[in-house]
Amino acid sequence: MNPVEWYRNKRIVITGGLGFIGSTLAHRLVGYGARVRVVDAALAGSGANPLNIRGIESAIELWRADLREHDVIETMLVDQDVLFNLAAQAGHLASMEDPETDLTINATCQLRIVEACHRLNPTLKIVHTATRQMYGRTHELPIDEDHAINPIDYNGVSKRAGELYLLVGHRAHGLRVTSLRLTNTYGPRMHCRDARQHFLGDWVRRVLTDQPILVFGNGSQIRDFNYVDDVVAALLSAAAEPSTDGRVYNLGSDEPISLTDLAHTLTAVYGRGRIEYTRFPPDRERIDIGDYHGDFTRIHAALAWAPTTSLRTGLASTLAFVNQQREGYL
Amino acid sequence: MNPVEWYRNKRIVITGGLGFIGSTLAHRLVGYGARVRVVDAALAGSGANPLNIRGIESAIELWRADLREHDVIETMLVDQDVLFNLAAQAGHLASMEDPETDLTINATCQLRIVEACHRLNPTLKIVHTATRQMYGRTHELPIDEDHAINPIDYNGVSKRAGELYLLVGHRAHGLRVTSLRLTNTYGPRMHCRDARQHFLGDWVRRVLTDQPILVFGNGSQIRDFNYVDDVVAALLSAAAEPSTDGRVYNLGSDEPISLTDLAHTLTAVYGRGRIEYTRFPPDRERIDIGDYHGDFTRIHAALAWAPTTSLRTGLASTLAFVNQQREGYL
Repeated sequence: MNPVEWYRNKRIVITGGLGFIGSTLAHRLVGYGARVRVVDAALAGSGANPLNIRGIESAIELWRADLREHDVIETMLVDQDVLFNLAAQAGHLASMEDPETDLTINATCQLRIVEACHRLNPTLKIVHTATRQMYGRTHELPIDEDHAINPIDYNGVSKRAGELYLLVGHRAHGLRVTSLRLTNTYGPRMHCRDARQHFLGDWVRRVLTDQPILVFGNGSQIRDFNYVDDVVAALLSAAAEPSTDGRVYNLGSDEPISLTDLAHTLTAVYGRGRIEYTRFPPDRERIDIGDYHGDFTRIHAALAWAPTTSLRTGLASTLAFVNQQREGYL
Repeated sequence: MNPVEWYRNKRIVITGGLGFIGSTLAHRLVGYGARVRVVDAALAGSGANPLNIRGIESAIELWRADLREHDVIETMLVDQDVLFNLAAQAGHLASMEDPETDLTINATCQLRIVEACHRLNPTLKIVHTATRQMYGRTHELPIDEDHAINPIDYNGVSKRAGELYLLVGHRAHGLRVTSLRLTNTYGPRMHCRDARQHFLGDWVRRVLTDQPILVFGNGSQIRDFNYVDDVVAALLSAAAEPSTDGRVYNLGSDEPISLTDLAHTLTAVYGRGRIEYTRFPPDRERIDIGDYHGDFTRIHAALAWAPTTSLRTGLASTLAFVNQQREGYL
């Protein structure tokens, strides 16, 4: 597939399109000549940032709308070719504090998308984004898609229910659904103002503002990281390839790394920075998943996808972007 | 464990206690000297039947209340020892027609039970009932608890989400939760007026009223059946045994049987009856799971549970009960 050709004039709707990944996808699609509609409620505490679409404001159609409001889902997807389904309540701690909002956004709204798509646009391609958090505490790494789903927080439950609704949409109604299970995604435009979206955003801010990076526990936990451009490439390929209908794919990385090593890499790439070890806050510890490393063999086989940006390169780009746009991101 | 001793004076709440399984459990518990509270909304289309508690009306506390109403969940579980969590939207076809009601009852209410239990009664033992429908279309029989969860209808999604919420309640809050995944349950007090709860209830009514049994397709699909007293025994054992906390168990049977053979067994046990084969209605076919046979090795090892009632014996008891109480069940 030549994505530039495939996407030209395609009608694309991106939910959560003011967020980090959605907006990066929107920039790419505008470059490909697609007709991009961004739908985002810009909820407080979400990753939505109006600066994320700087430079493409006039090239996209922006709907400030909440998927929970009457008719938004039905209206947004009529006559569209592809739905990139990135709107989600992503916070694990937040899900423990307000689990019903988490359930409504991540599961009920997905059910409504399936029903609306079935009724109004049954040939729409839906690329959904799920999360490795659904696997829970895992033991044998790397984790492939057949691993048991044992979430340890409410967010993992609601995200799994949303994915299952979309898959029932495929099985029972023939809808064209693909779910990508993302691992930690980082890059330019990531939310850095606090640790609500991702601890790595918090670390980036701390490095750039001469504050110590906080590592919980002994820092031995293993994680994998994908640079946002690699995630966008996976989303674009999945949407354009019909054989992905009804399938679920992990993303992942060949560079799993401990949090201690990640902290040292980040400070080394920036050229300075301090690291402090601190006790695990109890509310975070009880929902910590331990080690994680995703097996992306399946998407590599199906779409020849593999991450192409090394952690050092990606971290350097991220630091450079946020450092240049401090007023919007710090 | 001597159940008679263990349950004497225990405070027990049974949601869905006017239904087939819940009411049979209530009868048993009253016999054991437990203090039984039955909570049931008696929704139209549910399996609730006031006749199910005939004989124990004055021995139980009956709440006609909907779990979705404000404060019902909180109030019902305070100071209780055991919650048997049988209230559910069980209809597969119904879930495809009204999926949000299905989601609210099967998932949102379970989340509220977890939150209320965590806050108001953290030592309550919860025995939840889930369904083999969550496994979806399976290939290698029998199916154990580690089999992938791939529901093919909305009801399977909502039931799975509810089970996962309860398990997160165990993992994150230390709640005492056990989930039993039931297969087809039959016996006295089963809903026979239509096929909404179970096709076997419909068959029982047809045999007793000289109408032909309808078998969809060629009747080769394999199913397994548990007599209700065996299911009640599993519920009672699971509640009384602390080592079941946080665990999931299949029920199942050593007598898997094709629908054709089941139809012949039923008519043979009754002594007469006709069988008609008919095309699968499309709305049922798209959510049919094919063959199923549950592996109950795990609960046998943990609780020495195994079904003790043969299919012929159980069908004879069922036919005799419904035949004697035609006015209430046909």
